[in-house]
Amino acid sequence: MFVLGIDPGLSRCGYGIIEIRKKHERAVAAGVIRTSPENQLPKRLYELRNEIANLLREYNPDVIAIERVLFQRNTKTAISVGQVIGMVMVEGVTAGCEIIEYSPTEVKLAIAGHGAANKQEIEQMVKTLLGIDTSLDPVDAADALALALCYSANRQVGVA
Amino acid sequence: MFVLGIDPGLSRCGYGIIEIRKKHERAVAAGVIRTSPENQLPKRLYELRNEIANLLREYNPDVIAIERVLFQRNTKTAISVGQVIGMVMVEGVTAGCEIIEYSPTEVKLAIAGHGAANKQEIEQMVKTLLGIDTSLDPVDAADALALALCYSANRQVGVA
Repeated sequence: MFVLGIDPGLSRCGYGIIEIRKKHERAVAAGVIRTSPENQLPKRLYELRNEIANLLREYNPDVIAIERVLFQRNTKTAISVGQVIGMVMVEGVTAGCEIIEYSPTEVKLAIAGHGAANKQEIEQMVKTLLGIDTSLDPVDAADALALALCYSANRQVGVA
Repeated sequence: MFVLGIDPGLSRCGYGIIEIRKKHERAVAAGVIRTSPENQLPKRLYELRNEIANLLREYNPDVIAIERVLFQRNTKTAISVGQVIGMVMVEGVTAGCEIIEYSPTEVKLAIAGHGAANKQEIEQMVKTLLGIDTSLDPVDAADALALALCYSANRQVGVA
């Protein structure tokens, strides 16, 4: 099965696709979709949607694991992240995917074993778990892969 | 031309469609789309999307006027409203609509002439402007029509 992890954001939206076969995870693709702040919001969301739809067509994931955002500095940022999450959810359901949200703490627990893990620890664990020896840059791609791995970890212990 | 006003919300999403011909506005349709809190979020957004897509197909509006949300009590509510706004924007761009956001104050100024107008004043002005003599219930429908009328008012004074 294929799992698409999404680290939602309007300027930078991280994505990471893994394949889970029996108990083994393999990295399939990862990267960041960017939209330009120079464009108007509806156009940016539309472009981001088209990129997400391309990923769904190309990799046909069974599951989308997306970050459950629990806190943002201000309403503007929360609305912006919400816009991306809403779009991804609708595209995902349309493509027949199961969609599961994980809080940052759930991801940290599943990947690093403790809920206070920092960005570097998560990136290192993602690289170790997937046997990646190059840098995962920018960090949004690592965060997205961590979300996909979180689904895999919860599935193996029967939580998902 | 047809204008679709959207008062975004996950449990209750208001919509109102007006036709603008020369300087005259006519109410075409208004109502509220509801989704059940008993269903999971991705399914609710998907159902709401299908209803919005139906409206776009049926009325083929030129413009979508949607509330620009500037403040919410908490991140959870802001994310939820953002999810609906993002979905509407993507559907609107896909359908070839121009999308314009108005803050609550802009709507109040355009409809009632002052930025501190309350819900009842707005509903009454919407009914007067559109020649509606029945109650606009629930208020989400009136708010959505007010957004569409705000576009019309700004257009006439050359602001839109």
